[in-house]
Amino acid sequence: METEFVRWLRDRVPTHSSLLLGPGDDAAILQWQHDANCVVTTDLLTDQVDFDVQVTPLEKVGRKALAVNLSDLAAMAAKPVAIVISLALPRHQALKTAQQIYEGLLPLASEWAVAVAGGDTNCWNGPLAISVTAIGQVTAAGVLRRDGAVAGDQILVTGEFGGSILGKHLDFNPRVSEALYIRKQFEVHAGMDVSDGLSLDLFRMMTESGCGAELDLAAIPIADAAHELAKSTDFVKTPLQHALADGEDFELVIALPPAEAERLLAQPPDSVPVTRIGHCTEQPGLYGVDDSGQRAKLSPAGYTH
Amino acid sequence: METEFVRWLRDRVPTHSSLLLGPGDDAAILQWQHDANCVVTTDLLTDQVDFDVQVTPLEKVGRKALAVNLSDLAAMAAKPVAIVISLALPRHQALKTAQQIYEGLLPLASEWAVAVAGGDTNCWNGPLAISVTAIGQVTAAGVLRRDGAVAGDQILVTGEFGGSILGKHLDFNPRVSEALYIRKQFEVHAGMDVSDGLSLDLFRMMTESGCGAELDLAAIPIADAAHELAKSTDFVKTPLQHALADGEDFELVIALPPAEAERLLAQPPDSVPVTRIGHCTEQPGLYGVDDSGQRAKLSPAGYTH
Repeated sequence: METEFVRWLRDRVPTHSSLLLGPGDDAAILQWQHDANCVVTTDLLTDQVDFDVQVTPLEKVGRKALAVNLSDLAAMAAKPVAIVISLALPRHQALKTAQQIYEGLLPLASEWAVAVAGGDTNCWNGPLAISVTAIGQVTAAGVLRRDGAVAGDQILVTGEFGGSILGKHLDFNPRVSEALYIRKQFEVHAGMDVSDGLSLDLFRMMTESGCGAELDLAAIPIADAAHELAKSTDFVKTPLQHALADGEDFELVIALPPAEAERLLAQPPDSVPVTRIGHCTEQPGLYGVDDSGQRAKLSPAGYTH
Repeated sequence: METEFVRWLRDRVPTHSSLLLGPGDDAAILQWQHDANCVVTTDLLTDQVDFDVQVTPLEKVGRKALAVNLSDLAAMAAKPVAIVISLALPRHQALKTAQQIYEGLLPLASEWAVAVAGGDTNCWNGPLAISVTAIGQVTAAGVLRRDGAVAGDQILVTGEFGGSILGKHLDFNPRVSEALYIRKQFEVHAGMDVSDGLSLDLFRMMTESGCGAELDLAAIPIADAAHELAKSTDFVKTPLQHALADGEDFELVIALPPAEAERLLAQPPDSVPVTRIGHCTEQPGLYGVDDSGQRAKLSPAGYTH
């Protein structure tokens, strides 16, 4: 099956200026221009954990497998260069499954000019699993790490949060160009992408940075989907709780000095709103302040692996 | 489970001079020295296909997951730099499974000074799957591709072939230093590693190169394990047939001009014998000549995915 699949794929993988040697040899060769450092990340998506093969269209699974990796590169402010893809395919309709996954993945690869450098494909008796590894380059502006936030920094986010499971988790736009723009134009102390939940991921960033955060709860941008989800589940959680804990928002959360935050709020990227949601504190942990001025400790909540 | 595992792993992953930022952020950063091009390869190992979780020690599975990737980098004559690892773990004893896999993998990573740059770990209801992506650098000597052999080139191999399933498929030494030595010291037209079977992989190399090969069948170095396997299976296949088709030998097969072949045979690497097994021909396809001088077409045989 793999031979037939590779033949099918060879006609569809676009040539890429950085791909000196593509699939077909023992490994791919990427032209590495300049002395840029290399950023590498990998994400594994598995059936019944990250998608449900019975209901999720395979094209969307393929798109997501790439998009989560692009979101990780964005979280480092790295320029995407290439990916490799491992597919563990159930034997039934293995070729069709592989083709549908690539049909979802390839348009996103083209959109970001990412070289599809290679992969490995196994048929087996297990469920569907997809592992994508993405390679990027550090730009002249530098990287975006989690550990540089300091007390007094303002905390800004792109986009809206919560209710991603209703659709966005499959269709989100990784914030690659936004991250590159922000890193280039502003002094940013720390940043990451929100995959496991806004409060949990922000807590991780604060912990790595050795500080804490106070959130202006009324300022958290809540997605319509979070309201919808809260309503459809009889408000077991409020929309705000969904926004703080659902995860798979794949938005950026960044910490930057107040003057730089003001500048960014005045000159946001064209593609997505940027909102100030709080600031970094000397005191570790997360605190929330509601619109009556009440301050309370927030438990970091989200998806723990 | 992943949080606990990452904590366990952080204490065990050695620091590495090229690893500017290791596991824990959204992605790893590798220092990319010089303007070397980047070589990337990925291999997926799955339960019941590449190993049997009931009988194969998990440390050996982990070692193999890295070793097959190092063999691919060797096949390109690339210097290993870093790896990332995706693990799909059955829920039962997931942490212990992950630890045993890494305990097999880490010593080999240290042996080759490969940075363990990151990974992703999912628990699920499926069987065990491991995907490793390896990143290497092209050296000043250049890469080793499959498509450069020409008629008249001599065909040389490292080591012995056949019967790998009796043990070598888990314990083999990837021919990294041998490939770097050979590429640096000799003019080599083409090369690859033998993973699917000597005759099948050589056929692929010849096809990519636009030529064929004639093998001196009496010269093929047959492993003791191939004799053993032939005997234990009542000679359904001869030892030579095992050597030509078993695969997972992870030896190098290379094509080089006659004078360079002579030089290499006179100055082989210290670690492994090098044997001349035939030469490249204008005529496509594979032919074998036995010790009576009889010439017959050989069907490429091996593991087809």
